[in-house]
Amino acid sequence: MCRWLAYSGTPVLLDTILYQPEHSLIDQSLHSRMGVETTNGDGFGVGWYDTSPHTSTPAVFRDIGPAWSNRNLREIADHVESPLFFAHIRATTGTAVQQTNCHPFRHGRWMWMHNGAIAEFHRMRRDLALVVDPELFLDMEGSTDSEMMFYLALTFGLEEDPPGAVARMAGLVERVGREHGVEFPLQMTVAVTEGQRLWAFRYSSQGASRSLYYSTDVETLRSLHPDLTFLREVSDETRLIVSEPLGDLPGAWNEVPESSYGVVQPGGDELLPFAPSPEPVLSP
Amino acid sequence: MCRWLAYSGTPVLLDTILYQPEHSLIDQSLHSRMGVETTNGDGFGVGWYDTSPHTSTPAVFRDIGPAWSNRNLREIADHVESPLFFAHIRATTGTAVQQTNCHPFRHGRWMWMHNGAIAEFHRMRRDLALVVDPELFLDMEGSTDSEMMFYLALTFGLEEDPPGAVARMAGLVERVGREHGVEFPLQMTVAVTEGQRLWAFRYSSQGASRSLYYSTDVETLRSLHPDLTFLREVSDETRLIVSEPLGDLPGAWNEVPESSYGVVQPGGDELLPFAPSPEPVLSP
Amino acid sequence: MCRWLAYSGTPVLLDTILYQPEHSLIDQSLHSRMGVETTNGDGFGVGWYDTSPHTSTPAVFRDIGPAWSNRNLREIADHVESPLFFAHIRATTGTAVQQTNCHPFRHGRWMWMHNGAIAEFHRMRRDLALVVDPELFLDMEGSTDSEMMFYLALTFGLEEDPPGAVARMAGLVERVGREHGVEFPLQMTVAVTEGQRLWAFRYSSQGASRSLYYSTDVETLRSLHPDLTFLREVSDETRLIVSEPLGDLPGAWNEVPESSYGVVQPGGDELLPFAPSPEPVLSP
Amino acid sequence: MCRWLAYSGTPVLLDTILYQPEHSLIDQSLHSRMGVETTNGDGFGVGWYDTSPHTSTPAVFRDIGPAWSNRNLREIADHVESPLFFAHIRATTGTAVQQTNCHPFRHGRWMWMHNGAIAEFHRMRRDLALVVDPELFLDMEGSTDSEMMFYLALTFGLEEDPPGAVARMAGLVERVGREHGVEFPLQMTVAVTEGQRLWAFRYSSQGASRSLYYSTDVETLRSLHPDLTFLREVSDETRLIVSEPLGDLPGAWNEVPESSYGVVQPGGDELLPFAPSPEPVLSP
Repeated sequence: MCRWLAYSGTPVLLDTILYQPEHSLIDQSLHSRMGVETTNGDGFGVGWYDTSPHTSTPAVFRDIGPAWSNRNLREIADHVESPLFFAHIRATTGTAVQQTNCHPFRHGRWMWMHNGAIAEFHRMRRDLALVVDPELFLDMEGSTDSEMMFYLALTFGLEEDPPGAVARMAGLVERVGREHGVEFPLQMTVAVTEGQRLWAFRYSSQGASRSLYYSTDVETLRSLHPDLTFLREVSDETRLIVSEPLGDLPGAWNEVPESSYGVVQPGGDELLPFAPSPEPVLSP
Repeated sequence: MCRWLAYSGTPVLLDTILYQPEHSLIDQSLHSRMGVETTNGDGFGVGWYDTSPHTSTPAVFRDIGPAWSNRNLREIADHVESPLFFAHIRATTGTAVQQTNCHPFRHGRWMWMHNGAIAEFHRMRRDLALVVDPELFLDMEGSTDSEMMFYLALTFGLEEDPPGAVARMAGLVERVGREHGVEFPLQMTVAVTEGQRLWAFRYSSQGASRSLYYSTDVETLRSLHPDLTFLREVSDETRLIVSEPLGDLPGAWNEVPESSYGVVQPGGDELLPFAPSPEPVLSP
Repeated sequence: MCRWLAYSGTPVLLDTILYQPEHSLIDQSLHSRMGVETTNGDGFGVGWYDTSPHTSTPAVFRDIGPAWSNRNLREIADHVESPLFFAHIRATTGTAVQQTNCHPFRHGRWMWMHNGAIAEFHRMRRDLALVVDPELFLDMEGSTDSEMMFYLALTFGLEEDPPGAVARMAGLVERVGREHGVEFPLQMTVAVTEGQRLWAFRYSSQGASRSLYYSTDVETLRSLHPDLTFLREVSDETRLIVSEPLGDLPGAWNEVPESSYGVVQPGGDELLPFAPSPEPVLSP
Repeated sequence: MCRWLAYSGTPVLLDTILYQPEHSLIDQSLHSRMGVETTNGDGFGVGWYDTSPHTSTPAVFRDIGPAWSNRNLREIADHVESPLFFAHIRATTGTAVQQTNCHPFRHGRWMWMHNGAIAEFHRMRRDLALVVDPELFLDMEGSTDSEMMFYLALTFGLEEDPPGAVARMAGLVERVGREHGVEFPLQMTVAVTEGQRLWAFRYSSQGASRSLYYSTDVETLRSLHPDLTFLREVSDETRLIVSEPLGDLPGAWNEVPESSYGVVQPGGDELLPFAPSPEPVLSP
């Protein structure tokens, strides 16, 4: 499995979030507390939107090998500032350790990252691949279940209706899984964004999903911890979603409930129920 | 494109063939004379059968980065002896530089390597993937046309009838290519083996195939060059097939004719015509 | 040997300089015209100062493997904007292909890159290392002559007097070389900067130095090529120094003369003669 | 820190020792029980002598990244058979993750690997480097304390008197350390071999050395475990020395005592006391 974090808010140096916290994502790459594996050393990635946008697509920096010893990640974290970024550390469940299997995945302005697994993906891979839109299929480069889930969601309308598309993707995975005799086909915590809004999903067929947390709203945190400089420097709308808390600050972290998803967006964020839905009939 | 060599005969240190010749494959990684690209620095691989077999499968050592500076390849070449091995240096035509895209590819006891391309593979990839046997599809890990060609050939009976299966694969690629409006869909020089016999194919839809050479039989070479120690140390059945000659020894190298294939095998080797054939109707 | 470029001027996306020119540095990694080697595929690096400085040190992104296929370099070039950056592609003359041997090298706010060689460096390495300031010695991580030259220059006062320190370093290398019976000990084109000014040196003991060019001043170029948009978008002070021209624009490139150095700085740039000088007596 | 194993005895596939045991070295790369770090993912190496020697030097295969996911190591382990080999997994204490810092180190027929550290090596590195024989200094490529210890031992006569040379190296390190105000300068478990005999040292200035174990002699083990096929297939002289036991077989593993060293050799193995000794006066 894996660990990830998604940040949205006041532009910060990536270092502030990736390395500075006591139990940072980099620390989790060696010492995850809540993951299936303690070690997440099979590649990593960070994807960010620019503060002053030159381009319509996010930058994605991914490499094989562990995050904890990667010097280029350290350099980027010290010099890149972003209002919205994803970071992911990987522990492979069998697929190859290669750049094209590292998260986040990108399609145009969209980024996607995932922790979890499609159970017995190996056996279902072909059936799922057949459903991917042939035009989109061209852009798949890796061999992970995570990338397949992204391209299925894109096929099902991710760019128009993210929660609906993810629900249809989940519905397809569950149907195909059951056709292959798999009792609990899907286990996922997914983050997806187009650079403005950020959606985070927590769901598993078994109802025993991987851990997922969101940070308490900044205003409340400030009143709890009036002495924390960092909280005074970020906007009210700043939000983190993480596989596991980045430290032990009381009141800072809230579990995303089972079978739900959150939307981080300008204005008010939302937390809503999530359930897989039947995928649409796709005409070839 | 790429460069490759296949060796069959008296067990030799890989170094003898990979590094020692004047215009060795390692030299070709920097200074190819006949390739589409001078530089073949986008990964490499070597696959070998053991001299005293412990295992039924060949070893495959593949890495990203150039062969010319790879120290582990240098070590293996100095210490591994083999009676039958493949070596390949890659120049990508766009697909990712990653281990799972490096040749040779392996399936059980079989190895496959390729120089050439399926024209506009990107667009045809999905249609071709659908033809691969679902059981075999599970084992595909990379994103190259070369691996796809291997798995199509396996689907079409490579293990029973190599020339027939390769012909059916080529027939399929040409049919699908033409359906996509591609005039010359296939360009290939392929080597394939199961550890005893070795088949090498040269074919292109256009009739303008990449270069391919086979070494003159050892007995003839000895009479031409009675002073060459190396020739006295190898068996009469020793044979090399190469993308381009490893040196300028007069009389040593012969072009594999267009649209033909060779079989290197115990007893007499053969050179035969090759043509794509219609792929069989496959029942799902 | 290697190829490099140094940019100083109006902040631009790295892509503009690294990838866009007809004969860009990335193109030179495969097809150098003036280098000792056609291929420069043994690692690369790019170092940049931030547009809005968060930190007093430049970022340095270095990796093994060829620049031409590196996807992370492509991402950084598309998203990082800088007023002053170095880029370097490496062709090793024997030392290991590893990140700590890739240029640019950094010490505090200073960056250094080099094309050339200390002749028979292997034999002189120890004698040179003994001269490096013990405090500075702690920070040397690689095994190249280039890094040694940087640390010798730092030892000789690079941070106070760059041309003087480089002259003393060159003087030491020539003295030690001659003590080892080397006729022409030094061959160098070096760039060095602290983020404001940029010095570029061209020198060799033999008087046959590697190629080095500087761009014509922008005002003159605009009058030569009034139609070029790019020239209207950059400041008068924008300057490039390159191992070989990035294209064939008439009037754009000027050879740095043998045994000279240039200073790119706010106000007027300078071109001055360079000669090695005796190194100072250093008290231990 | 790190973990290592050394094998001497009946030629076996590397796989038998590297992957098959319940708590194999590969398992230790993720889940070390006795190491300072649970994870040893900063590179690895294996060095082996050939069964039928073609060459006078061992092969050394080293790579950055974790051993647990390295496919080439898996291939080599499945195909290489050796009567004497070293394997090492690294957890860096700060020096760069690069091939030239991976163990085992090789000099001619000799191999060396190490777990431990020279305390505050950074500060002592220059003083120690000055003692290395200038001829030997040429071959140092990395930046670790471990390689420095090897070259110091070579300088002090490792090839003639291994225990004496290691004792003089340890004496030097302790002397230089104390000159720098370091209370406990040395912490080491070292293995060294020339292909016939194997020496393993356990020592630390503090008398609190890293764990080190040797396997019980095969005859005794056979009487304890008459049903174990493996024990019937290996010679009486087969011996393993390991940082931590490869499993829980009762009676199989014995701690190497503090301040002692073992010799594995044809005829009877030996276990002897070890103490640092004054280094010789070296004439320049």
